Amino acid sequence: MKVSIIGVTGYGGVELLRWLKHHPHVEVHSVHSSSQAGISLAEVYPHVVSEETWILHEIDVEAINADVVFLATPPGVSSRLTPSLLAKGLKVIDLSGDFRLQDGSVYEKWYKKTPPPADSLKQAVYGLVEWNRESIRNARMIANPGCYPTATLLGLAPLVQHQWIDEQSIIVDAKSGVSGAGRNVSLAVHFSETNENVKIYKVNEHQHIPEIEQMLRSWNEKIGAITFSTHLIPMTRGIMATIYAKTTKPLSTKTLVELYKESYKDCKFVRIREAGNFPSTKEVYGSNYCDIGLSYDERTGRVTVVSVIDNLVKGAAGQAIQNLNVMMGWEEDTGLTSIPIYP
Amino acid sequence: MKVSIIGVTGYGGVELLRWLKHHPHVEVHSVHSSSQAGISLAEVYPHVVSEETWILHEIDVEAINADVVFLATPPGVSSRLTPSLLAKGLKVIDLSGDFRLQDGSVYEKWYKKTPPPADSLKQAVYGLVEWNRESIRNARMIANPGCYPTATLLGLAPLVQHQWIDEQSIIVDAKSGVSGAGRNVSLAVHFSETNENVKIYKVNEHQHIPEIEQMLRSWNEKIGAITFSTHLIPMTRGIMATIYAKTTKPLSTKTLVELYKESYKDCKFVRIREAGNFPSTKEVYGSNYCDIGLSYDERTGRVTVVSVIDNLVKGAAGQAIQNLNVMMGWEEDTGLTSIPIYP
Amino acid sequence: MKVSIIGVTGYGGVELLRWLKHHPHVEVHSVHSSSQAGISLAEVYPHVVSEETWILHEIDVEAINADVVFLATPPGVSSRLTPSLLAKGLKVIDLSGDFRLQDGSVYEKWYKKTPPPADSLKQAVYGLVEWNRESIRNARMIANPGCYPTATLLGLAPLVQHQWIDEQSIIVDAKSGVSGAGRNVSLAVHFSETNENVKIYKVNEHQHIPEIEQMLRSWNEKIGAITFSTHLIPMTRGIMATIYAKTTKPLSTKTLVELYKESYKDCKFVRIREAGNFPSTKEVYGSNYCDIGLSYDERTGRVTVVSVIDNLVKGAAGQAIQNLNVMMGWEEDTGLTSIPIYP
Amino acid sequence: MKVSIIGVTGYGGVELLRWLKHHPHVEVHSVHSSSQAGISLAEVYPHVVSEETWILHEIDVEAINADVVFLATPPGVSSRLTPSLLAKGLKVIDLSGDFRLQDGSVYEKWYKKTPPPADSLKQAVYGLVEWNRESIRNARMIANPGCYPTATLLGLAPLVQHQWIDEQSIIVDAKSGVSGAGRNVSLAVHFSETNENVKIYKVNEHQHIPEIEQMLRSWNEKIGAITFSTHLIPMTRGIMATIYAKTTKPLSTKTLVELYKESYKDCKFVRIREAGNFPSTKEVYGSNYCDIGLSYDERTGRVTVVSVIDNLVKGAAGQAIQNLNVMMGWEEDTGLTSIPIYP
Repeated sequence: MKVSIIGVTGYGGVELLRWLKHHPHVEVHSVHSSSQAGISLAEVYPHVVSEETWILHEIDVEAINADVVFLATPPGVSSRLTPSLLAKGLKVIDLSGDFRLQDGSVYEKWYKKTPPPADSLKQAVYGLVEWNRESIRNARMIANPGCYPTATLLGLAPLVQHQWIDEQSIIVDAKSGVSGAGRNVSLAVHFSETNENVKIYKVNEHQHIPEIEQMLRSWNEKIGAITFSTHLIPMTRGIMATIYAKTTKPLSTKTLVELYKESYKDCKFVRIREAGNFPSTKEVYGSNYCDIGLSYDERTGRVTVVSVIDNLVKGAAGQAIQNLNVMMGWEEDTGLTSIPIYP
Repeated sequence: MKVSIIGVTGYGGVELLRWLKHHPHVEVHSVHSSSQAGISLAEVYPHVVSEETWILHEIDVEAINADVVFLATPPGVSSRLTPSLLAKGLKVIDLSGDFRLQDGSVYEKWYKKTPPPADSLKQAVYGLVEWNRESIRNARMIANPGCYPTATLLGLAPLVQHQWIDEQSIIVDAKSGVSGAGRNVSLAVHFSETNENVKIYKVNEHQHIPEIEQMLRSWNEKIGAITFSTHLIPMTRGIMATIYAKTTKPLSTKTLVELYKESYKDCKFVRIREAGNFPSTKEVYGSNYCDIGLSYDERTGRVTVVSVIDNLVKGAAGQAIQNLNVMMGWEEDTGLTSIPIYP
Repeated sequence: MKVSIIGVTGYGGVELLRWLKHHPHVEVHSVHSSSQAGISLAEVYPHVVSEETWILHEIDVEAINADVVFLATPPGVSSRLTPSLLAKGLKVIDLSGDFRLQDGSVYEKWYKKTPPPADSLKQAVYGLVEWNRESIRNARMIANPGCYPTATLLGLAPLVQHQWIDEQSIIVDAKSGVSGAGRNVSLAVHFSETNENVKIYKVNEHQHIPEIEQMLRSWNEKIGAITFSTHLIPMTRGIMATIYAKTTKPLSTKTLVELYKESYKDCKFVRIREAGNFPSTKEVYGSNYCDIGLSYDERTGRVTVVSVIDNLVKGAAGQAIQNLNVMMGWEEDTGLTSIPIYP
Repeated sequence: MKVSIIGVTGYGGVELLRWLKHHPHVEVHSVHSSSQAGISLAEVYPHVVSEETWILHEIDVEAINADVVFLATPPGVSSRLTPSLLAKGLKVIDLSGDFRLQDGSVYEKWYKKTPPPADSLKQAVYGLVEWNRESIRNARMIANPGCYPTATLLGLAPLVQHQWIDEQSIIVDAKSGVSGAGRNVSLAVHFSETNENVKIYKVNEHQHIPEIEQMLRSWNEKIGAITFSTHLIPMTRGIMATIYAKTTKPLSTKTLVELYKESYKDCKFVRIREAGNFPSTKEVYGSNYCDIGLSYDERTGRVTVVSVIDNLVKGAAGQAIQNLNVMMGWEEDTGLTSIPIYP
């Protein structure tokens, strides 16, 4: 099967290439970049110098001759490109946030941009594979979840679906490596400003908030507004979402672990830790896993859920390929079975 | 005035020395180490090689000939040493946790150690200067606050004291640099295990929980059990406490900032950021400041308080010297006025 | 083919597992640890929790039932185990330094340990695949090169073999990530002592010096003593060897690049950069590549060679598998073709 | 005494402020920025928010009303400003490279910029205090040495002055933290590209090469072209220069240490380590020290000199203040006596 990658010079794009190159059923047919068309990818990323020469093509929808197109583009681009890609009969997997919010006005509010056309928006399926497999199987257009929503939603799903937590009590304190901010240069990602430093950003304003709430409410419509904070950590890859919620009844850590193990028993990429054991971000580095640790605190009646992913894999490229696999009817973990790199 | 430092080979101890060396009213009279007595400090820490030769003395209470003794020792040591130091008529500033909990049984439960004798415990004053100045002025024995409690309590004080928050709603998500774990070697502080990694530890079990709750309840006895989590961040120095609580009434970020500015208007080391501006840990690096940023979220009715310190300065050595200054009747910031090191 | 890994709980051992798990012709039959036998590997390394349950076995040569044994053990262990493994008819690939020096007395001098028995030493082939392929093909026992020697020798080989440099002029300034020091705990690998720091160590005393000189002299016996320095860099993985030498005649960077491209034209894992382009360690992260950049300086008549590897892959586990592939007659890059992880 | 800082929003400028604020004889009278004039410094650097409100002034030479002006500006600026500052009778300390090279044509070649006017160039004294004290005492215009030249020249001075090394044999392998590249944003200082990475840059082309050679030749005119390489290390502050040279006669490490101790016996900021002990960059972090370790290798007849500084202190702001002290006839270490921050 032929695939094209649009936006290959971003971190999400080049990570797609790393995985797709070894995918047994896929051939990367063309790679595209709006800013650097004409040169070879190895001029932008010397680490791929030994690979076949990937020439960066312009983004010309007409000229794309693939079965599936991955869009790893900044906000506002895929909402423009997707309708014509779909019209050509191609399948689309979009790693940007453009098609994740079903309500265009919500998109407009949080992204400060024009939403995609309603008819293509309607075709978009939210690609959180673990909880949307059936819809993905029949989809032509996938809105690949955001990095923070992936960690958060996988961490919250069993509790919300079973209504074990107070719907108004959810607080998510998320920590991310700097690669989540992309490759564009700015003072915010300057090494000397970021190293030996923890920063909080977009307090109560992050565009992933409505994405998380939308999915939570698809599981339990009574879920209230969540508190969601994002922190920049001096590391390159990795997200940890530390999630707090009040339970509706006394529990135990043991019960929690059992619930999660049962909920994810058919999910190859979600690993539930035993009671007393919590995952660190490094333990999923470079892999498509989401590891989850759990604790119930009798003193407070609250649960603490710790959910970690590699933001560029399960939070972007890896999950996009997982979506491809499901959409194509292949084994869900095809080409994605690497052990995390440690240390 | 002559001071002695017991436990000078730990990070807290050597940081005391860095500050005390420039303190205009203090002479460091002797430094002590149980493990490495007999050699010079420069053999343990080559970065002090140009200073006068500090010989490491054994910890012999009888031989100590100073006015004030700083104890920068592991848990369990100062509870043993302090009674005899006090009996000699010396003043004691203890950087360990031994004398922070007024109830010996609480200490025993969280520290798994024998508490200090009740009569010396009774003399201990909790050295959170900003809120305990009067007691510190008359104290002979100071229990210097823990690093996490310092950031957390300064971040919560105005809200708790004014009863603006639901007493059962406090959640503290704290992030710390690795130096907080001390100089002892272990896999937990191994570079290859810590770099490019975020880890959560002691979930719902950290010994700083009762310390925080005790002080909060001194301000509002209805404060319930708090949820408190600690994360290890790949940096050396710095703590950020991100604090969440439900307010008892609608507020605004502007009102919050005003409350905090008013509450801390006489506190040289607490800096309140304007609305929309949040501190990062690097912005207090190497200094005795605690910087606080605030946000009220109308969607959730919750406040987010961001409180940052340098764990070895305001969270340990700097605050200890601030206590010394108050105890001695000197200007509170004597010898402590450095601008943070940036970047 | 069945393989066993002895010393799987070290960083080299667990990296072997990461690669071997995906190797198409290999089954990892047993894993062994002297220190933690009896438990499962996931208890030591939670990041492998989703894999089959690898129980850590004791190191009992009699009980090993594999075709090839990888030894990822500290100095002194493989010299003891190898003779009996060979006697059982097994093939051995040793990642330690025990069998790299052909002269036992040199080993004794630099390693301060008893050398291996002469007869098993004689069977050992130095596994620098790019320059020893033929011997490796017929070998039963491989001494896998050290991390520093790999980067250095690949960087120097064409110049030394063609006698383009003054034999007495070689200086190697090497920089390594901390994982090269292994997983044992010590102050030298403590995060707070290593982060924001560059340290030099074992000045003129590193045990890799005789290993490098031995191979250089196999190419040109007139090569004199080299100056070789090693620095610890605040990163986990990666080695850069910056190599300086005086040329025997005027050259140009262009000529150098041509020589290297020609010398390595059949080597899949050595990538020569164009003139003006130098590799960084991150550009080979997680891969088996050795990237080399070159410069000739007319002002000084010296060449600068920059050679980078991932110390745990091309400098350890990856090269060991490359040796396995050659020894077995498989394609040299079988199971080793990953694109580096970037960023 | 009143001083002004031009270019205060760069890292060198804000570091000047950190030190000058505590200098007993100095008042910072005005701070200037070409790019951000009109706002307060705390808007650019929130870490100074508690200090007096420093308003950023435009760079208007006529309006500057101070005794001494520090120029912490990019190349090409001070060559333009200095003549009129001198004409006003002010003293000037320039942290840029504009006035370091006595020969304008050499400046033009390496900096690719127009050199300063010859008459103001003639007034510039190279501010390597340890070896130029007398000239500095009488100077009106100081060219503050570059960060790499400071570490390198202090490391080489005794050997070159005593002609103990082969004049053609000097090789300097330098490693720097990222703050040396300044605060401007670029891919080269992007965290995700810099973290977990070592990069070499400007191979054989660094503009500090002629600066080093000029000073070496003032000590021994036979010194030939040096090989000098610079590497970017994933840390914020610190430079290590590892220096190699052939000796003209057999030595011992002990003799080397004695020579250096004698050479620097009156230099408060140069600390010579005992044989077998080498400094790391962290051991001078945040201080004005230059620490030097030495080794003579009998096998090769070469010395290895390890010289470390904090690039923003001894390599920039600290040394500039040291120059001020000497120029004013104050104690050389006035306001500069901090113990390094460790860890």
